[in-house]
Amino acid sequence: MPNPSLHIDSAVFERRLHELAAHGAVGSTGMRRLVYTEAWTSAMALCRKWAISAGLETRIDAVGNLWARLPGRTDGPVIVTGSHIDSQRNGGRFDGALGAIGGILALETLGRQIGPPRQPLEAVVLCEEEGSRFSQAGFWGSRAVVGKIPMTDPDRIRDQDGISIGDAMRVTGLDPDRIPEAKRDDIDAFLELHIEQGPVCEDAGVAVGIVDAITGIAHFEAVLTGEQNHAGACPMDLRRDPMAGFAEIAGRLIDHAHRLGRPAVTTVGRCEVDPGGPAVVPRRVAFTIDARHPDSEKRKTMYAVHENLVRETAARRGLAIDFCTLIDHEPCRCDAELVVTLQQAAANCGIRTITLPSGAGHDAQQMSDIARVAMIFVRSRGGLSHTPEEFSTTEDCVDGIRVLAEALRLLAY
Amino acid sequence: MPNPSLHIDSAVFERRLHELAAHGAVGSTGMRRLVYTEAWTSAMALCRKWAISAGLETRIDAVGNLWARLPGRTDGPVIVTGSHIDSQRNGGRFDGALGAIGGILALETLGRQIGPPRQPLEAVVLCEEEGSRFSQAGFWGSRAVVGKIPMTDPDRIRDQDGISIGDAMRVTGLDPDRIPEAKRDDIDAFLELHIEQGPVCEDAGVAVGIVDAITGIAHFEAVLTGEQNHAGACPMDLRRDPMAGFAEIAGRLIDHAHRLGRPAVTTVGRCEVDPGGPAVVPRRVAFTIDARHPDSEKRKTMYAVHENLVRETAARRGLAIDFCTLIDHEPCRCDAELVVTLQQAAANCGIRTITLPSGAGHDAQQMSDIARVAMIFVRSRGGLSHTPEEFSTTEDCVDGIRVLAEALRLLAY
Repeated sequence: MPNPSLHIDSAVFERRLHELAAHGAVGSTGMRRLVYTEAWTSAMALCRKWAISAGLETRIDAVGNLWARLPGRTDGPVIVTGSHIDSQRNGGRFDGALGAIGGILALETLGRQIGPPRQPLEAVVLCEEEGSRFSQAGFWGSRAVVGKIPMTDPDRIRDQDGISIGDAMRVTGLDPDRIPEAKRDDIDAFLELHIEQGPVCEDAGVAVGIVDAITGIAHFEAVLTGEQNHAGACPMDLRRDPMAGFAEIAGRLIDHAHRLGRPAVTTVGRCEVDPGGPAVVPRRVAFTIDARHPDSEKRKTMYAVHENLVRETAARRGLAIDFCTLIDHEPCRCDAELVVTLQQAAANCGIRTITLPSGAGHDAQQMSDIARVAMIFVRSRGGLSHTPEEFSTTEDCVDGIRVLAEALRLLAY
Repeated sequence: MPNPSLHIDSAVFERRLHELAAHGAVGSTGMRRLVYTEAWTSAMALCRKWAISAGLETRIDAVGNLWARLPGRTDGPVIVTGSHIDSQRNGGRFDGALGAIGGILALETLGRQIGPPRQPLEAVVLCEEEGSRFSQAGFWGSRAVVGKIPMTDPDRIRDQDGISIGDAMRVTGLDPDRIPEAKRDDIDAFLELHIEQGPVCEDAGVAVGIVDAITGIAHFEAVLTGEQNHAGACPMDLRRDPMAGFAEIAGRLIDHAHRLGRPAVTTVGRCEVDPGGPAVVPRRVAFTIDARHPDSEKRKTMYAVHENLVRETAARRGLAIDFCTLIDHEPCRCDAELVVTLQQAAANCGIRTITLPSGAGHDAQQMSDIARVAMIFVRSRGGLSHTPEEFSTTEDCVDGIRVLAEALRLLAY
């Protein structure tokens, strides 16, 4: 049943967005807030201050995630919402921050305007989603919650200065030996509010998207080796030119994803040429392939076509090929009932939405190990993210928080 | 008329090749002999010692080229042979050195075994052909001889340490103000002996090639700019991906040169991707195009097709294009009579040859401004050059010197 009286204060949201952005600000809109640094610690303290002033019960877990609880009339399984506040090294103000601020504000609104829920509600602010300080520690906070951090990681994983993530935790007063205590097994559902990071909502003319799946992703690295030659003295017919092979492969990989259509994507984002002189037929071209699909079977088929295309082209052109998989993550389907709840919540608020898969990874993907999950996307201007230019209007952000709060009301009251 | 008695001493050649390689040696076969350095100065002194011991009259000109003269019965126009002894930064023992050693040895053999020529003969050892110390000073020695060094160059052109080429000259006792004195106007013909630097002779199974043209060359730089996006969150159909444009362009440029067939060549040797992350649709791809043809008209047509292809692809894909010409050198036709003389000389020596264009630039190209020119190529193993692995057998090198000496005999006696 609609509850038109639920009111999100857009002025409070906007003020908090700016207050949070002051911690780790770079230039006028840039953000560099890396986990376990001073900027991150002071930003987490600010979030805790908001939660306390909202009347929520707060605690910091063993890896540094902040939990803020609106107790229910029962202790039953918890419904959680949240996101992260660590940023890319050259990131913006919205990625992660929207869902962290929005989660606390949604619980504050529900508690103040409706009162205690049936089931307990919690807002969480997770740490090191980006892996921007510790490149091997992406989803660190959510992985701790689901119990997927190997005990060797705190000593093994290091930042660019050689500092281990375990030592970085100790500096902020956390004990890496206690990481297993962050694991939870009492979460029923996890809803994550996040900027879209792509142009699909903008292209469709809606402020809010409901996410029905988080894409599966793999990164491959391919190295084509031919024969280095003088660019003038070696005739075309005697060359084994890895650049010619690369051009064919990159073009056909990208074309293949195009023909498959949404939501398949394939990107060749890195290409390194050895030796790289204008007058030298290269010896070697190394490149990466990022390929994603939210459907598990279609993803496998796409990867097989990609790999076959790489190997066939290399063989036909007399090039040696070294092909390996750098990362490979299964897609995550959102819970169908939660998706319907989010669609219902948007309808109750009079907010038009589309349903789309997420092409980027999110904490929700990790949380799906222990809970039902779903996500709300807010339109990003120009589809931009991971840049100081990322931007969503306050109106769109507040629409996202309204859908979130209404969905939590439908689930927990 | 054949002169089967002309005998090139292969042991002397081989010993001199090794002696010269000691100056600037890197590892067992590598060479880094940069102009106006100690390694280069001592190598030039060694060449002068050989010339003096061969009974030739030597002098160093205003830029440091070494001239060694076998006087003729007349003072008439001079027939010159020679090459350079500066090397690439990571070069080998044969590039340039073969023609420098071979020229002195040919004159020594002619003087000792036949006596004074009708026309004077000179062997020259030229400086900074490669532009490997001063990247803007390629063909420095031969350009001085033809009078094509602007007077602002000695102060303007600098090496990687910021030292001007003028100051580098002063260190070796040369006065850059006197460069114009190096210009000559009394040269009738210039014959250059050089390793092939490509696989054409090897592919044809001959030790020696006669060069009938030196290719025309241009370097272009193209920068494709699209829109940077998240590799997962931006659908294929909303991208403007410069990597996709680059792949199509590079593939089609290379295919076009293939279809034109020998001697057309096109190389994409450098490609730089910004920002170059595996999970980022690039903002920008910058690349070079090296395209060569020894026929002036066909070269122009080829460049027009190339540029049109780049611009059409960029426009069709919604990419901005920045296209510029870095260098553009007209082809140089060898003198038809000299080519016939070289073919006759090879026949006289019983050496089988092919006639081919040079796909690489050479000092002979500069010398053609003031003299008739032609070249002799010696087979390179695997077509390699500009690498420590470049190699030609002593037998092949001596065959090249035999053709050179016999041609000089046909011309000057």
